[in-house]
Amino acid sequence: MKLVSFTYQGNTRIGSVHDDQVIDLNLGYVAMLEAAGELRAKQIAEAFIPAEMVGFLQGGEKSLALAREVIDYVSKNDVPSSYRIVHPLSEVKLEAPVLKPGKMICVGHNYREHILEMGRELPSVPVVFAKFANTIIGPEDDIPFFPISEQLDYEAEFTFVIGKRARNVSQKDALDYVAGYTITNDVTYRDIQRRTIQWLQGKTVEGSAPMGPWLVTREEIQDPAGLEVVLTVNGEERQRSNTSNLVFTVQYLVEFLSQLVTLEPGDVVLTGTPGGVGVARDPQVFLKDGDVVRIEIDRIGALENRVRKAGEQG
Amino acid sequence: MKLVSFTYQGNTRIGSVHDDQVIDLNLGYVAMLEAAGELRAKQIAEAFIPAEMVGFLQGGEKSLALAREVIDYVSKNDVPSSYRIVHPLSEVKLEAPVLKPGKMICVGHNYREHILEMGRELPSVPVVFAKFANTIIGPEDDIPFFPISEQLDYEAEFTFVIGKRARNVSQKDALDYVAGYTITNDVTYRDIQRRTIQWLQGKTVEGSAPMGPWLVTREEIQDPAGLEVVLTVNGEERQRSNTSNLVFTVQYLVEFLSQLVTLEPGDVVLTGTPGGVGVARDPQVFLKDGDVVRIEIDRIGALENRVRKAGEQG
Repeated sequence: MKLVSFTYQGNTRIGSVHDDQVIDLNLGYVAMLEAAGELRAKQIAEAFIPAEMVGFLQGGEKSLALAREVIDYVSKNDVPSSYRIVHPLSEVKLEAPVLKPGKMICVGHNYREHILEMGRELPSVPVVFAKFANTIIGPEDDIPFFPISEQLDYEAEFTFVIGKRARNVSQKDALDYVAGYTITNDVTYRDIQRRTIQWLQGKTVEGSAPMGPWLVTREEIQDPAGLEVVLTVNGEERQRSNTSNLVFTVQYLVEFLSQLVTLEPGDVVLTGTPGGVGVARDPQVFLKDGDVVRIEIDRIGALENRVRKAGEQG
Repeated sequence: MKLVSFTYQGNTRIGSVHDDQVIDLNLGYVAMLEAAGELRAKQIAEAFIPAEMVGFLQGGEKSLALAREVIDYVSKNDVPSSYRIVHPLSEVKLEAPVLKPGKMICVGHNYREHILEMGRELPSVPVVFAKFANTIIGPEDDIPFFPISEQLDYEAEFTFVIGKRARNVSQKDALDYVAGYTITNDVTYRDIQRRTIQWLQGKTVEGSAPMGPWLVTREEIQDPAGLEVVLTVNGEERQRSNTSNLVFTVQYLVEFLSQLVTLEPGDVVLTGTPGGVGVARDPQVFLKDGDVVRIEIDRIGALENRVRKAGEQG
């Protein structure tokens, strides 16, 4: 499935994308339950397929299986017109698939060539840092460029989302704890990142994590290695690598992180960025108002956002 | 007010501490509304004084004023016995005042003597890093010591909690955006903190942020400077300083952070730790199973937790 968060008439809900349509999973389940004569349809749907992504992921395999039944039901039946269950994609706004993850964990220095271009040594353990959820914007949003720096930079990141509570999980079992994959642009205010020894302040600026366009569930990407990652700015290629070049794999990261913290459904992990970031180019080149940054990753799709100069008040 | 989160018979709710009693603010408000003949008492109480701290803080000054009315009402009236509104402190378990902050922002290198003992220069801008909310435990919980390191260390931290959404707030207005103050022990796995250039992994280990015992609201501490901070281990003094020695004040930090991100009600900011941490002592001394770590801060109180060896599964 391609799971999305979308906004229709001011309400943000979760759905599943099929070609140019999105199915509202919660309402689809309500319709399916009502057709079966269930009087508590809304309450049951709220319990198993809530309209918010983190709650839905907490439902685990059971909720995913029900979502597949709903998709099947909606595609085969005339659903009552009192609900708007199926929307043309053009009539909704796609949001970041996970809007309020409990944790947003980023891995630095994870592609060989990026490590070398930054003049650093290959790490023996992952370097991890945080962004906060206030950074998250969606695939149809502009990247706000606040006048606090002139060094706005991009970082294409293959991202996985946790689907099951994970503590001390081994690499062998790791993928069972992954709900699926998406794309994040780890937008960075480079000078602010580097003005102290801890990166957080340049990494967690408001609106600095465009994410999407959807969460591709695990069964569609059996192996998270081997996916090409390409970033362009105004059509010009700036980053290109492959998830096979990750120093620390998805499986390794689940094991490593779950030895430190309990990973929860909806937590997102950005796996690091390939070589080619603006600050490491010669000459250096940073993002400017109007630039269009596009990230494509095999089997997921494309995340494209425009940079927009923002007022001081955001 | 001394605001707490407390657990009674399995339910965690917010309250206000008065001597050796705690008033359940939500239920107190329900009783007050019902006594006034209000038929929608529960719903109104849920809207303005919910039983969860972040929601309550979102209500801002209006909810704080109502809470004061409730305390006055409960102390002057016989409230109906169908609710258990007043509990002896001995019959409840105190939890961290804020259980699920959206952000947990930590300041490093913020007391002069600690900066010098770590062999570093005084910073020109604050060093900030993150912990995630999974670290938070309460004043009656043990600090779990996971067998992933032998270098468990303490850090006494004067902590402020945001009470009002803040974006680009000036130092002059900063305290209007602070709900109040509490104590946090920024427990650190020192070798894990230092094995990479980013500290997060040694800072966000499960259960590594004892917080409490309560949130002292702003009107009780007009000036956050001038508060003595003392940490003892098994009664032996290890850290002592005063919030007057902060390089970056509460007011400065609100201005600085709100220029980067929108601070939200319930966000917590740990303002840094004084000199005397275990890793900087000669000889170095780390925490061990059974140690009792106590932090006292003027006008707030004391936070005391015992270190408990934890199994690999937590």
